[in-house]
Amino acid sequence: MKPKIEDVAKVAGVSPTTVSRVLNDRGYISSKTKEKVFAAMKEINYVPNDLARSLYNKRTYLIGVIVPSTNHPFFGELVDSIEKMCNDRGYKVLLCNSLQEAEKEKKYWDMLRRNQVDGVIVVTYNRGLIDKNQQFPAVAIDHYLSENIHVVSSDNFQGGELASKELLDVGCKNIIHINGDVNLETPANERQYAYEKVMHDAGRKPLTYHVPNVAYLESNIDVIKQLFQENPDVDGIFASDDLLAIRTLQHAKSLGYRIPEDLKIIGYDGTGLIRSIYPELSTIVQPTYQIAENAVETLIEEIDGTSQEIKEKTLSVSLWKGKTTRASS
Amino acid sequence: MKPKIEDVAKVAGVSPTTVSRVLNDRGYISSKTKEKVFAAMKEINYVPNDLARSLYNKRTYLIGVIVPSTNHPFFGELVDSIEKMCNDRGYKVLLCNSLQEAEKEKKYWDMLRRNQVDGVIVVTYNRGLIDKNQQFPAVAIDHYLSENIHVVSSDNFQGGELASKELLDVGCKNIIHINGDVNLETPANERQYAYEKVMHDAGRKPLTYHVPNVAYLESNIDVIKQLFQENPDVDGIFASDDLLAIRTLQHAKSLGYRIPEDLKIIGYDGTGLIRSIYPELSTIVQPTYQIAENAVETLIEEIDGTSQEIKEKTLSVSLWKGKTTRASS
Repeated sequence: MKPKIEDVAKVAGVSPTTVSRVLNDRGYISSKTKEKVFAAMKEINYVPNDLARSLYNKRTYLIGVIVPSTNHPFFGELVDSIEKMCNDRGYKVLLCNSLQEAEKEKKYWDMLRRNQVDGVIVVTYNRGLIDKNQQFPAVAIDHYLSENIHVVSSDNFQGGELASKELLDVGCKNIIHINGDVNLETPANERQYAYEKVMHDAGRKPLTYHVPNVAYLESNIDVIKQLFQENPDVDGIFASDDLLAIRTLQHAKSLGYRIPEDLKIIGYDGTGLIRSIYPELSTIVQPTYQIAENAVETLIEEIDGTSQEIKEKTLSVSLWKGKTTRASS
Repeated sequence: MKPKIEDVAKVAGVSPTTVSRVLNDRGYISSKTKEKVFAAMKEINYVPNDLARSLYNKRTYLIGVIVPSTNHPFFGELVDSIEKMCNDRGYKVLLCNSLQEAEKEKKYWDMLRRNQVDGVIVVTYNRGLIDKNQQFPAVAIDHYLSENIHVVSSDNFQGGELASKELLDVGCKNIIHINGDVNLETPANERQYAYEKVMHDAGRKPLTYHVPNVAYLESNIDVIKQLFQENPDVDGIFASDDLLAIRTLQHAKSLGYRIPEDLKIIGYDGTGLIRSIYPELSTIVQPTYQIAENAVETLIEEIDGTSQEIKEKTLSVSLWKGKTTRASS
């Protein structure tokens, strides 16, 4: 039999109400009594039931995190940082991999609501899933869900600009952009707008290819093949995701392009993992750690009720210059 | 105000006890009554409180998953598969990144126990953290925690053998093994024993270098440098982790070694991610999906009480033959 509050009370020589108050940190209890209760808990190996306390306190210290998949380096790194920060602050993470399917996302939202999470951090791409009167605090990372939800994002327009200018600066003339599903309202669209603006400003014609899903490499190869068939003279490619950039680079090499002499390539995300195993790939580095930190802090402020206003925070990205955009001499 | 069970009862024209029975699927309720209750719930937008039901049913449908970090491709892929399978079966995942720190792991175990999780899947490497009388179902992936805990693992000895034989088969003479911290009781040790056996059987002397932490690339570079300084004639390397293999390959290239002409390299894990962006790397592929599937199913069987015996399941690994072990002609 698991020991109960009553057993702790008996051993400590206090009332069950007193034990309960100590556990929930409510009402005045002398430090001497607290010590007696904790000693008794230890003696009979009593494990507090956080679930029961959650119901009583109306706080679960659970945070739902909805991401497309931890299997992608950017989301794996982001979830890692979010979980670390939640744990440091006494919160637990309920992980939900939505695979970018609207139906799955909706089910996760319902599940999180039924489980009384204190808040949600959402890193997926389907709008309109939560009604405006949603009843718990939420922070969206990198995209707008609705007007009454905080947003923490990196500067996607700046990233698109940095990447496009880098290719122009190293002498590329025929620069093509590869991005994800054109129908998703993702922040990656900002990267495309920036690319188009930079191209127009430089008097060049922008051309964007869309892959069905940046995260699923296999589904993208047909688009990459088509790009090279239709544009054999391409000399610069800005891909909106590092994995996509690497895949494009591999295909280009198999066609005989020398990198960077014939073709220069730049990616996006710049996770520690990819920079470590593919340091030669130029990329735009997202500030993953700061994104996670800002999201967790904003969410906890709302949970604690210390902030009422809806926040919008945009963080700067930076250029990682590898060999794939080295100027040909 | 959030609608309550009483409000649902009023709208449906039944008693609150009936609503509660429908929600918890207890006792006989006609399908007509059920329909009325569900219609009423929908009408007034009632969200069931799973937390309260968990306390009542003594089931939370929460599964704790303790991994070193989702930031590593193997664990990212594993967590992804585990979460997918749990979700398919109506379970939620509480994610815990232990960073392989014993103190953090211990805190996570306590937290999971306090939160009444139905079970735990643990993929970390510190023994002795749970007492033999631990009170909830658990499955360990790839290592032995204690006698009364299920183990699902891939065949690490077979993997070590496959990797070492591959290097011998393609003509390597001076084969060195790189593994993680020698003091951790990890299954990766089995890979080293297999390497040593294959070497002995072939009449060669085994030599293993240990890096402080396979997952933290930066901490490993000193050991990699030392390996090449002390063994300039090395012509085959078996690294116990793909990231480590890639890092070693990069350093070897910077020293002027041609891969595979001068030096052949094989890694370990073979995640979809690494095989996709580094298809040239030979590696031992772990059956991540099956590992996750077996772990989740074994755990749920124990939670459901349909199985009492302690299970040990070992799954086969396979060789992915890339260019880095191509025979030199």
